Amino acid sequence: MKQTISFNINSHIRRFTKGVAHQTLYQYSQAVSPHIAAEGNVLSYDLDRLQNAAKLSKQVISNERILKSVYDFASERASVGPGWLFIETAGGIHSPGPSGTTQADLYAALRCPVVLVGDWKLGGISSTISAFESLKIRGYDVESIVLFDDAKYGNADYLKDYFKQRHGLSVTALPMPPLRDNASSKEKDETSMLKYYLETSQTNAVQDTLNRLNNRHNARVKALENMAADAHQKIWYPFTQQQLLQTKDIVAIDSACGNHFQTLVAESTTLPNAKSLLQPSFDGSASWWTQGLGHGNSSLTLAAAYAAGRYGHVMFAGMIHEPALKLATLILDSFRNPRLSRVFFSDNGSTGMEVAVKMALRAARIRYGWSPDTKIDILGLKGSYHGDTIGTMDCSEPNIYNEKVEWYEGKGVWLDYPQIQCVAGEWQVQVPCEIEADHNQSFSHLSDIFNLGQRISRGDHKSYETYINSALRKYLDKGRKFGALILEPVVLGAGGMTLVDPLFQQTLVRVVRQNASLFGAVESSGFPDDDRTWQGLPVVFDEVFTGIYRLGRSTAASFLDSHPDISVHAKLLTGGLVPLCVTLASECIFDSFASEEKSDALLHGHSYTAHAVGCQVAIESLNQLQRMEKTGDWNWAKSNGWMQVDNSIHASLPQSPPQVWSIWPLSLVQWISLQTNRVAGVWALGSVLAIHLHAADGSGYTSSAAEGLRKRLLSGAEIGPGVSWNVHSRVLGNVLYIMGSQQTMEREVGEISDLLRAALKG
Amino acid sequence: MKQTISFNINSHIRRFTKGVAHQTLYQYSQAVSPHIAAEGNVLSYDLDRLQNAAKLSKQVISNERILKSVYDFASERASVGPGWLFIETAGGIHSPGPSGTTQADLYAALRCPVVLVGDWKLGGISSTISAFESLKIRGYDVESIVLFDDAKYGNADYLKDYFKQRHGLSVTALPMPPLRDNASSKEKDETSMLKYYLETSQTNAVQDTLNRLNNRHNARVKALENMAADAHQKIWYPFTQQQLLQTKDIVAIDSACGNHFQTLVAESTTLPNAKSLLQPSFDGSASWWTQGLGHGNSSLTLAAAYAAGRYGHVMFAGMIHEPALKLATLILDSFRNPRLSRVFFSDNGSTGMEVAVKMALRAARIRYGWSPDTKIDILGLKGSYHGDTIGTMDCSEPNIYNEKVEWYEGKGVWLDYPQIQCVAGEWQVQVPCEIEADHNQSFSHLSDIFNLGQRISRGDHKSYETYINSALRKYLDKGRKFGALILEPVVLGAGGMTLVDPLFQQTLVRVVRQNASLFGAVESSGFPDDDRTWQGLPVVFDEVFTGIYRLGRSTAASFLDSHPDISVHAKLLTGGLVPLCVTLASECIFDSFASEEKSDALLHGHSYTAHAVGCQVAIESLNQLQRMEKTGDWNWAKSNGWMQVDNSIHASLPQSPPQVWSIWPLSLVQWISLQTNRVAGVWALGSVLAIHLHAADGSGYTSSAAEGLRKRLLSGAEIGPGVSWNVHSRVLGNVLYIMGSQQTMEREVGEISDLLRAALKG
Repeated sequence: MKQTISFNINSHIRRFTKGVAHQTLYQYSQAVSPHIAAEGNVLSYDLDRLQNAAKLSKQVISNERILKSVYDFASERASVGPGWLFIETAGGIHSPGPSGTTQADLYAALRCPVVLVGDWKLGGISSTISAFESLKIRGYDVESIVLFDDAKYGNADYLKDYFKQRHGLSVTALPMPPLRDNASSKEKDETSMLKYYLETSQTNAVQDTLNRLNNRHNARVKALENMAADAHQKIWYPFTQQQLLQTKDIVAIDSACGNHFQTLVAESTTLPNAKSLLQPSFDGSASWWTQGLGHGNSSLTLAAAYAAGRYGHVMFAGMIHEPALKLATLILDSFRNPRLSRVFFSDNGSTGMEVAVKMALRAARIRYGWSPDTKIDILGLKGSYHGDTIGTMDCSEPNIYNEKVEWYEGKGVWLDYPQIQCVAGEWQVQVPCEIEADHNQSFSHLSDIFNLGQRISRGDHKSYETYINSALRKYLDKGRKFGALILEPVVLGAGGMTLVDPLFQQTLVRVVRQNASLFGAVESSGFPDDDRTWQGLPVVFDEVFTGIYRLGRSTAASFLDSHPDISVHAKLLTGGLVPLCVTLASECIFDSFASEEKSDALLHGHSYTAHAVGCQVAIESLNQLQRMEKTGDWNWAKSNGWMQVDNSIHASLPQSPPQVWSIWPLSLVQWISLQTNRVAGVWALGSVLAIHLHAADGSGYTSSAAEGLRKRLLSGAEIGPGVSWNVHSRVLGNVLYIMGSQQTMEREVGEISDLLRAALKG
Repeated sequence: MKQTISFNINSHIRRFTKGVAHQTLYQYSQAVSPHIAAEGNVLSYDLDRLQNAAKLSKQVISNERILKSVYDFASERASVGPGWLFIETAGGIHSPGPSGTTQADLYAALRCPVVLVGDWKLGGISSTISAFESLKIRGYDVESIVLFDDAKYGNADYLKDYFKQRHGLSVTALPMPPLRDNASSKEKDETSMLKYYLETSQTNAVQDTLNRLNNRHNARVKALENMAADAHQKIWYPFTQQQLLQTKDIVAIDSACGNHFQTLVAESTTLPNAKSLLQPSFDGSASWWTQGLGHGNSSLTLAAAYAAGRYGHVMFAGMIHEPALKLATLILDSFRNPRLSRVFFSDNGSTGMEVAVKMALRAARIRYGWSPDTKIDILGLKGSYHGDTIGTMDCSEPNIYNEKVEWYEGKGVWLDYPQIQCVAGEWQVQVPCEIEADHNQSFSHLSDIFNLGQRISRGDHKSYETYINSALRKYLDKGRKFGALILEPVVLGAGGMTLVDPLFQQTLVRVVRQNASLFGAVESSGFPDDDRTWQGLPVVFDEVFTGIYRLGRSTAASFLDSHPDISVHAKLLTGGLVPLCVTLASECIFDSFASEEKSDALLHGHSYTAHAVGCQVAIESLNQLQRMEKTGDWNWAKSNGWMQVDNSIHASLPQSPPQVWSIWPLSLVQWISLQTNRVAGVWALGSVLAIHLHAADGSGYTSSAAEGLRKRLLSGAEIGPGVSWNVHSRVLGNVLYIMGSQQTMEREVGEISDLLRAALKG
């Protein structure tokens, strides 16, 4: 990318480079910023390969169209055979393109290696270094810096040292071209220019630079091709039976942009004409449920870099810094739970849940006056999952994830629950036989199931109450002590991606709170009896996965209209960039640790507690997500069958039920549910689509029923001559899920839907 | 900061701003980059406030001197009373200063709010945005952008929208100044310029800008002053008994640079003349043991931002990306442990140790054919500490950190051990009475204690062997089963900052490995009997704190000359920027999880496993630290009494003992040890200094013996009129430790030493 443009490049190249194929894709007639030129000036625009470029005025060109034309030209050249291909941009690296987007952002998706044309003039050291940094923070690899040699300013000398020392990068200084002599003939001018080009192109500087670019390219391709084999030898993968993992199954990611990875096309690809090295691969697990605002989001990058520059990481115990305090305030304000007043920071959902458990058990033990060696259980739901550390594993019933872990010891009681699925076009609440309900209930809309007020007025909750009460009494009568009710509100994630009837969870919270005397005798009367004080059991909501807009709303608790006493949030908290977790608690829980004894404190804290980078990124993420909600960025999805966006149908109800919608169109969900030969049920909420398949080998984590479907999505489709695209999805036993980010676009959803329909039919 | 400088600012300001105090601190006579001017041209340099600036040639000025002169001028002006103070820099934001450092880096420590002078010319949109980004990623707050209004290029219009939308920032467009008319008289020219200044300064644009700067300044000060009170209400602090924490004790951190925080001076400061709002505060806990390469290290920032831009975070299971693979390779290569071949990523030391425990227990259970429900213990040392999650808490004997945690259940046997201290000028190995050694041993140099070969040849290890063998047999005879030997090599950190005799730990590892048959009967003969196969028990080294140069060497294991089968590294891994942990394992451990069953895999993995940002930062950190070691950056410290840097005294020994040194001078350590009325013992290694004080109330976490010393260091000292400086240190019961980064400078160590000596005397 070069810093200035001052003459007609097209004709210049034509004149001096005989036999070199070149094409000017876009050119404005005036040397001003393209966004100005596009508004009022003449554009010579030969996307359609006209020899005499079409003259268009007021031509604003979309980013997609620009990228497409670059891509098309590159593909055409590639078909000719190997060789050099340079894409030259106009203006500085942050000069706006014809759409208004600055070029550094516009071309980031291409991730071409960059030759940065530095500035030899006064101030050029500064502008060259800054330009380099703006490229670098967008993930560009600057492979070479080229500028004119100038004795007076000496920019090249300084920059050579600077980039070598700080970035191991070579700077090439080229001799100054001859001055244009307006007095002499055009012919003479051309001769001297030609001489300059001939001489310069044979210097070591130019040859070395070309060799270096060539070597770097080859090294990059080789590294990409070797990555999987190398990883197979060195990496111990999480949640992976590596004996079953072959090198060819490991996907090499070159980079990621927006909702897509850029991945190496496997040698074994089944698409007939795949020729390209890389392909876009839709990140259909939202990178393990974290991704919300797009890969390579430059606002998040800048937030991270700002905090790194301002603080690095700073010690948190006994200290405070702006990002941590701002984030704490923002979260407490925006989650709108009047119970929560305290923020504890940790590094991931698992550690955040360990903290929550420590908080809840202590609060219960103090309230009920139990001795320190009392065996205390938690109350939860079957199939729940709260993390991989052993303390949180102990919060789940024995299951595939934990039962082979030597120190695992389930410490709780787990109730069965009714779940929701769309089956053969109909929304069902499927009630397990333990609950003596009349029968499975059917609803025409998912939002009717989430309209809890209406269902309570019909008495739908009564059978739940009866079941919960009798189950509780059974365990309590045996002398079991409970220290917490722990729930993943609305969706159980790792446990099998099941959608829980929110009425059941709401009822469970109410029963626990209304029957406090069941759980223990309150020894002290020093506990205020207001609606911020926990009753019965501390209620812990694990929103690590379900919170922060994953299901379309700021909190998953709001679907239940319940306020937990402790709430844990991670994953989307940083928009999908770095690990961070917050465990929120009520003042009443916090007070359980107050004492004159240092050792009564919550003695937990990781080194990077409330690290500034994570906090700053989280502030930026939450602000972006809240802005999207406010400005109606998801209206396209909401109106795809899920709801009337203006919400007027509910205006007459005394209490509006929560908005229930998904980026996955209702029509797609219903179509999938009708593929009854393969599909047992399906649901979608927020950015999650979960397809439960019939499993001959039984459902559960070890089932392989969904594996075939995953592979078909991974095979992908051709999107151009020799160019493929695919969807990276994940399975949990017989369940295949696809999870978009909060920035997934309607067009992307359409493409995935087509692929999915074909895969389910095929 | 402005983009270009083209005329004599000094005389210009003098002419047009009557009554405004101003001073040109540095000026070169030629409009070239200062680093060029400094080399060969005339500098007008009036640091000493000469009216007729001294003419110096070839004047290269150190960064410290420049900052000092800025600071002195600012202090002088502040003493006059409130008002505006602008510091104008010359050239672009990355133009090199007289020392060669670019100005954006040079002035970062001042962290002044910035008015960025944008560029109205062609290419100016790009250079203005890039300049903004280079400032932002160094933690500057750009409060305003000012540039000339120009109708042709329209930069101001574009930049107004851009910065408002993306950064909520105002851009002020000023009318173009009148062109200098060389034909007209100087007087006429001056009149027209004066008219321009008068008119422009009364425009809304200028007044609004000044108001905004004023409001932002006041808001910034107010926010700083309110932070502690706000945090006291909202934050749940780690490892803190908050009932004992008052608002006045919470330190507000404005920013951090190098080895210092910039903290709000407490109202309660005991220094008589403290007037400044902020003070530098030495980060003497290395921000909870993480800090290595300085706060606000721009190389680490760029590494983080590059990965954020290139990837964001990308899913790791079944995939591979360059930063993760490069880091894995770099670590396996540089730790030089032939046993280790696999890298498992997690988020912090605690989760990394949970992973290590899961690995070790499985390997032992499979090898020895124990049933899944066998109760398996670990073997460790008293006072060890491995993290805050419950699984790692269970690896420690009951102690202050864990015994009140409801689900804690110690699962192991913990041996007593000999520790090392400098007492009254003498290095002692203090042997507990359980070990029937002759007596405590004294050494003249710490390096003699670490010369294990020499000590073994003298038979020092024999009493250790006897003790370990008999202790093991006692528990094994009772039927206890062990699944791992877990050690923090050389230093037990959280357990009380004690230095362990490395000979004891080496002996323990050897005894465990040489007596494999003690631990179980090997059922299968399928285990290769080479030196990469674990013997006896999987040996786990928790180097979370002690590794990666914290103790002066790449690994703490190298002090023991022992190779663990599993090794855990975090904290310094990212140089002190973001959380990341690696658990390294041998192929033999890895193979224990191989099976046809998915559920036999190591089912552990956090969402942000191997997040690209952390991995890229870790690569940069390790490279920087290795470069420092190679180029002898620590020779100043090594030669401060610890060792002869050329190491020639050991050249004749058959096996050179490891280098033992600290950034804390040996003379300081010895002086401290002689304060026997207060000091029980002291040691220093790498960047750690640990002072064990006599404790009337008994040693241990709840002791308050060291609190007084900590407070005296926190009171600090005056370093200028009204300006104070202090040291933020941490205590563990009766132990006070000060931990520098790996970039702590000799000068800083000197300043802290002086303060420490005064505090210990006082």
